[in-house]
This record gives sequence, structure tokens and C-alpha cells, in this order.
Amino acid sequence: MYGVKVMLIGAAIMSHGNPVLKPEDEETRKLAEALKEIGREFSKAEAYVIISPHNVRMSEAIGVIMVENLISWLGFDGVHLPGEYKTEKELAKEIYQRAKVKGLPVVDINFASLGGEYSRFPLTWGELIPLHFLEKRPIVLLTPARKVSRDTLVKFGEVIGEVLEEYDKKVTFVASADHAHAHGNGPYGHAPEAKEYDELIMRIIKENRLEKLLEISDELINKALPDSYWQLLVLYGVLKRAPMKLKLSAYVCPTYFGMGAALFVRK
Amino acid sequence: MYGVKVMLIGAAIMSHGNPVLKPEDEETRKLAEALKEIGREFSKAEAYVIISPHNVRMSEAIGVIMVENLISWLGFDGVHLPGEYKTEKELAKEIYQRAKVKGLPVVDINFASLGGEYSRFPLTWGELIPLHFLEKRPIVLLTPARKVSRDTLVKFGEVIGEVLEEYDKKVTFVASADHAHAHGNGPYGHAPEAKEYDELIMRIIKENRLEKLLEISDELINKALPDSYWQLLVLYGVLKRAPMKLKLSAYVCPTYFGMGAALFVRK
Repeated sequence: MYGVKVMLIGAAIMSHGNPVLKPEDEETRKLAEALKEIGREFSKAEAYVIISPHNVRMSEAIGVIMVENLISWLGFDGVHLPGEYKTEKELAKEIYQRAKVKGLPVVDINFASLGGEYSRFPLTWGELIPLHFLEKRPIVLLTPARKVSRDTLVKFGEVIGEVLEEYDKKVTFVASADHAHAHGNGPYGHAPEAKEYDELIMRIIKENRLEKLLEISDELINKALPDSYWQLLVLYGVLKRAPMKLKLSAYVCPTYFGMGAALFVRK
Repeated sequence: MYGVKVMLIGAAIMSHGNPVLKPEDEETRKLAEALKEIGREFSKAEAYVIISPHNVRMSEAIGVIMVENLISWLGFDGVHLPGEYKTEKELAKEIYQRAKVKGLPVVDINFASLGGEYSRFPLTWGELIPLHFLEKRPIVLLTPARKVSRDTLVKFGEVIGEVLEEYDKKVTFVASADHAHAHGNGPYGHAPEAKEYDELIMRIIKENRLEKLLEISDELINKALPDSYWQLLVLYGVLKRAPMKLKLSAYVCPTYFGMGAALFVRK
């Protein structure tokens, strides 16, 4: 990277399930430690771009949140983390505009007022739990869509990678993601595909070969019930534009859904 | 209307500024009375469809909120009305799908989870103040867009009108709207176009000739700074499909922005 200013300094997959907040077993403690390590590494960044499956959910449109303020609103199962964050609005605009120019199905989401204190949007556990492990920085919040093509999500990631590389501040990219939800003993029942999906995803991450995500069948995804696949495709697009090496990974399934972490840093 | 079951029984324009909650002069009291009269008339309905300029704001996409629960979140200037509402989700889906089939730039907005208690979205003064004057019913919440064509907004209204006429419950349509904001003594300064816009709008409403909205120039709108024009175009589309007569109207400008009410009922 001689002479090239690296502005996108890292990327991560961060779980958003409650168990990492109060780990009750050794493996969950290790996952929480991995999330903390991501926080230490990302403290070098001046802003974060986070894509979350538990904020706005549009079936055929990718969202770029354009508000000035992000405010804690919704926890899961009674666990409610507080938090207020400023957005990196110029960066959000740049991602939105670049994606639009490329013909991607992206929408800009503001709320209440176009600017000032009333321009705000609610956060859920999907953002608050990853952010809990990160030092406070301005954020760009993005949302995936499940009914756009895989190729569209990868291309959106490429746009993000390009924009972040050209930005004038150091930034990192975070995919908020829990894996399969059909591990049993939960509201989504038991399917053997849950274990299969999670093992495959963790192997793809450890081998740092995210292109293999494209080989996973819709059937496996539909039976495993993950909250990760679509954000991982976006992460794959980011890494296509900004190649990185895997620094750490962790995985555990203490309840009915798989949780993982992965930290990628520049080569 | 012999033999035709009328399901869309009325439509209204309802202001969302704080002054109607505690009227301090006679004209504002009359406006609050008009809003209450709308509430009495609409108590015959089983659901409301409301379009608000102070919820999601997307520049080029019309929003159909698909969550199950709408929850009070944001008041204006310290005035915060509580409230939780169920949505009329089947009706929301029907409006979204019909608009999509017609090629309109519409997106479906869910939040956090696709169903259940976590499927919820925040409400602001833009919805809470009109709803304060209405008996509690399930709601469909829609959001306008300012950078789509006027024709697109009218067509979206026509889709709403068609869908509501075919629905199996009695429903009404509410355009949440305040008029020009540049009347002076406020954050948006003074422009003579504010008075001009408001007078023109109230004349169009009183004459029940909403087609004349299309003759208003962008320049007048840009100088008057209304929060009403785009929702009124949608209302015009609704009325094209379901002709109504004006039952009452009111207008007052006690601070820096114009507030009005209008009630339309079937002929």
C-alpha cells in the first residue's frame, strides 16, 4: 500500500444477541472478548458504517439513514441499552448518491424534519449491541433488503468500499449479524440446516473466501433462518474493493441462534 | 350511489401544529372545533389511512408503513402526546401492492422484526396531533415524497381511492398538513408568498376544486414553505376516485405557520 492513504481501515461481523452482554458460559465469554477486541481495533477509526437487519426493513429497497441523530428506542426481551449517536451525514449522502448513480435500488431515509434536533431515527438491539462494544463515533446506518438480488447486495458493498476508501476520515465497516435461528429451543423450531449454515459461514469467514457465500442455496438459507446472509453479501462487496486479512473470529450458540464475530484488517 | 356500498366514507385535511391543543384565540378555537367535528364524523369509520409529512421522509420514494404497532415517540417543542395504535396491515399491503403494480415509486417499511410486538414504528406530532382528535382505530400510515412528480402523487391518491372503495371495512383518509411556514416571527422568516399560498389553498378547498393545485407554481411553493402541498395532491387523487362534497373548513395562522382543517363526505 505504498503511498496510498488507507481510509477504510477495517471491517467486522458483530453479533447482536443479548447473551454477549452477560456471558453465562466460557464460549460466550470468548465471543464477548472478540467483540471487545474489535472495539479496541476500531478505536483508530473516526466514524463507523453499520448495516443492521433490525432497523428499517424494506423488502426491495436498500436504506441509507440520513437523519442527524440516532436514538436508542427498542431492546429485545427486556434488555434495553441507552445511547444517542450523531450521524456522519456527508458520508451517508455520498454512499446514497453513488449507489443511486450506479442504478442500485437505494432510498434515503430521513425522519420528522430534514435537519436539526428533530431529524432523528430510532435504534434497536440490532445496532445498540454492536455499538456497545465500540467507542462512540459518528455513524452511518444502512439497512439491507432480502428481496433484491445477491448481485445487487454485493454491488452495494462495492460502492461502500469505494466511497470509504476515498473518504477523508478513517472509517470501518460493521455488519451486524446473527446467524441461523432454527437451532431449536426457541421460537423458530429446530432444523438441521441451522448447524449446517453456521458451520459453512464460519468456514467461509475463517478461509476469508466470502465469494463462496454466493454458492449457498436459497433452500439452506430459508431453512436455517439466519439474520446474517444479506449483510455478509454487502461485506463481501466491501472486501472486494478493499482486500483485508482476517485477524480474529469467534462463534457460539448458547440459545436458539448462532452468534459470531470476525475482525478484518487491511493487508 | 344506488346499490353501491360506500366504504371510503370521508376524507379530511387536519393540521398538526401544537396551537390546536390549547387554543389561545377565537380563530384557533374554531379550528380545534372543526378538528373535533372531523373526529365525530370519522367515528363511523373502522380504520383510518393517514399520510404525514413528519414521519419517514424519503426524497424519491413514497412510503407505506407495514409494522403492526405504531408508538408515540417524538413531540414538537416539548409537547408530547402519548399513544399506541395497531395498524390495518392487510389494507397497507393492498395499497403497497396495487401502487407497485401501477409502477409507482413506493416502498414497504417494516421495522426491527417482520411481525409481532417488535414490529413497530415511531409516531411524531405529525400523526399524533390529528389522531388526538379522532377516536382510536387501526391505522395505515403513508408518507409522501417531495422529489417525485406531481402526477405520481395524484396517481398514488387514485390507487388509495380505488383500494379503499373496494375494502371490506368503512375507512377514511386523512392528509396531515400545515400550510405555509414563512408567515414571519418564526424560524423560516417572512415571505409574502406564505399568505398568498394559504389563501389560494383555502380557496381551492372551499371551491372543492383540488385540480387547481396543479396550477400552483414551484416558485410559490418554494417561497411559502408549506408542509401541505404533496399530501394535498394525494388527497386530490383520492377524491378523483371517490367524489365528495365539502362539509366544513377552517383556517388560522396564530404563529408563523398556517393551519387548516377540511372535512369531505360522500355526495
